[in-house]
Amino acid sequence: MQLIPDSLRPEAALHVARVRDNIPAGCDAILIGFNANIYYTSLRFFRGYVYIPVEGEAVRFVIRPMGFTEEKDVIYVRKPEEIPSRLRELGMTLPATLGLEQDTMTWSDIARLVKAMESPRVINASPLLRAARMVKTPWEIGQIKEDGIHHAEAYRRFTKAYREDMTDIEWQVEMERILRLEGCLGYSRVSGQLMEINLGSVISGDNADAPTPYDFAMGGAGVSPAFPVGADGTTMRPGTTVMVDMNGAFNGYQTDMTRVWRIGEIAPLALEAHRCSLDILRELERIGVPGCPVAELYNKAISLVEERGLTDNFMGHRQHAPFIGHGVGIELNEMPVLTPRSKDVLAENMVIAIEPKFVIPGTGAVGAENTYQVTPDGLVTLTRFPEDIIPL
Amino acid sequence: MQLIPDSLRPEAALHVARVRDNIPAGCDAILIGFNANIYYTSLRFFRGYVYIPVEGEAVRFVIRPMGFTEEKDVIYVRKPEEIPSRLRELGMTLPATLGLEQDTMTWSDIARLVKAMESPRVINASPLLRAARMVKTPWEIGQIKEDGIHHAEAYRRFTKAYREDMTDIEWQVEMERILRLEGCLGYSRVSGQLMEINLGSVISGDNADAPTPYDFAMGGAGVSPAFPVGADGTTMRPGTTVMVDMNGAFNGYQTDMTRVWRIGEIAPLALEAHRCSLDILRELERIGVPGCPVAELYNKAISLVEERGLTDNFMGHRQHAPFIGHGVGIELNEMPVLTPRSKDVLAENMVIAIEPKFVIPGTGAVGAENTYQVTPDGLVTLTRFPEDIIPL
Repeated sequence: MQLIPDSLRPEAALHVARVRDNIPAGCDAILIGFNANIYYTSLRFFRGYVYIPVEGEAVRFVIRPMGFTEEKDVIYVRKPEEIPSRLRELGMTLPATLGLEQDTMTWSDIARLVKAMESPRVINASPLLRAARMVKTPWEIGQIKEDGIHHAEAYRRFTKAYREDMTDIEWQVEMERILRLEGCLGYSRVSGQLMEINLGSVISGDNADAPTPYDFAMGGAGVSPAFPVGADGTTMRPGTTVMVDMNGAFNGYQTDMTRVWRIGEIAPLALEAHRCSLDILRELERIGVPGCPVAELYNKAISLVEERGLTDNFMGHRQHAPFIGHGVGIELNEMPVLTPRSKDVLAENMVIAIEPKFVIPGTGAVGAENTYQVTPDGLVTLTRFPEDIIPL
Repeated sequence: MQLIPDSLRPEAALHVARVRDNIPAGCDAILIGFNANIYYTSLRFFRGYVYIPVEGEAVRFVIRPMGFTEEKDVIYVRKPEEIPSRLRELGMTLPATLGLEQDTMTWSDIARLVKAMESPRVINASPLLRAARMVKTPWEIGQIKEDGIHHAEAYRRFTKAYREDMTDIEWQVEMERILRLEGCLGYSRVSGQLMEINLGSVISGDNADAPTPYDFAMGGAGVSPAFPVGADGTTMRPGTTVMVDMNGAFNGYQTDMTRVWRIGEIAPLALEAHRCSLDILRELERIGVPGCPVAELYNKAISLVEERGLTDNFMGHRQHAPFIGHGVGIELNEMPVLTPRSKDVLAENMVIAIEPKFVIPGTGAVGAENTYQVTPDGLVTLTRFPEDIIPL
């Protein structure tokens, strides 16, 4: 059996070509060993390395799983130290300058690879891989669209799973079950050590104002000081909102979507802030065409928030998140990040999540988040599900 | 409000003292930034750094969450570059030699910290942290015991959640719900990029023989080439087993436990192999006293397996795992690792999971896994749940 089926080979080759196109002048090759990039360049996760020279064919060095046939570009090794001799056997020259994933691999793993590759000059390959993955191929857009369909299908069933006497966690557990039965893998690749999360975030009432150590837009205190994020186990009360930002990872790619439910009537300020969030989304959908600077999306959102006098509540209250969105793909958080200092410019077929959220003390969090495809006509929603606050 | 409540401070101080005791001669201080070690030394996860000098008090540099009171040893910073001046303000000398977590932090994060700390000589602090965490305190044993009680309580309800027409994933989803309602956090800290998993592993029939890219004892093909591990979506059939190794993370610590269910009657070889697994556990429970070399546990298991002629099926069939157990604590996989080459020696209050497992082609996986406390009387089971194969 082949490690990478013939049906996926042309797409994997396209991804490798995109990576190669991003290798800067003076770098002879890159050697990939990090999970998300192994998957991106091979469309199958394995333990091992993908070697991409500027000149010549890519080679996949596989440590595990065992038992697949070796092909021209699939070579079994026991350890990375075997790579140089195998490259020489293929008639390839060892790189004088090699790119390695310094932003995602450990110091020790990088040090081992440098030595194994006979100590070439090393550059950081992480930025070029982030850049390559930032613009999606049509096949990738298709995967993410499929995620969005399943994601919305699951959200459609959340209201019915609610019961009045539930804690936030109990409702979240029912949502997790619905998502998993819909095909959610139950695991989300995220970038960085500050993104620990289980199947998602369900934040009820004033738990939205609990400051978080993590890099999420909203926090939540969680139930353990070991893992202080998300639902905190309180009963959901009338007059409050529940913000639901649950996992959308179904097929190796993912979508990011947030919706808000309310128990009884909520404060006018909360309704106003939610309306502002939707207005921001509508405006950014319109201006988010190829060529639009990412910083402009951020600044536009901020100016709408300021107009409405909602700055103190935007992206948190006691603690504010410094972004309003991010790329989505194999990892939940990819490039570009929607900050005021971003130098990135939108390009066709980027996929970005935008999440203008507000925290209203005494009520909870409001706002909506969608995942979008960047098109010449603006942002196209891949998470099609009603955005109004849903009564419970 | 205090970041670390008074009630937890003595225990956190004990953990810091254990880390300090493991700092090798010639190293002046270590600076911790990795999640599991932040939690170990503070008993609360935060974004930031824990500075532990050989001489003088530990200092916690917190970036987030915001809003807690600064105390003598809790100092807010925006970025690691502020640490040297804050240390000087405290009258502390900067370290000439500094330990950093090179096995768990990225190359880029380590490079930034080295520069921020004004380029001291650097040693790898990961081994000393693994050594410090390897032997648990009485409080930690208490946490893990509590995990084991909830873990077993959840397992007790798994049989009832089974229905004949289910796929392996559908049954797993019900197990996930039971675990979560029992208090499982739904997230498990694991060490290394080769331990991606959702809430656990449910492996039915010949899926046990699917080779895995990951570092788990058993594999499973999964349902996506992006995440090839665990349940593969097949209906569970008569004459096969289902091996269940589900998440036991309830309180910042965790237990690891595997049990096997069967549908109808299974092959005599499978029953024999399961009996061998329990015999191995009984024998290792007896010899696993402080002072026993970890390699001896491995070798004893192998010799029992060889006596019964089951070598080809032990720890996999098409692909074999090179260990029979591992430490458990804040992370699912800690030190010691039970391999034939281990130089570690058991000490009182180590906590280890032992998982002698077999794969029987045509039937599935069998064997049991418990988490144990090392005591002068041998290994004491913290995952108390019947070990026989359970009929469905």
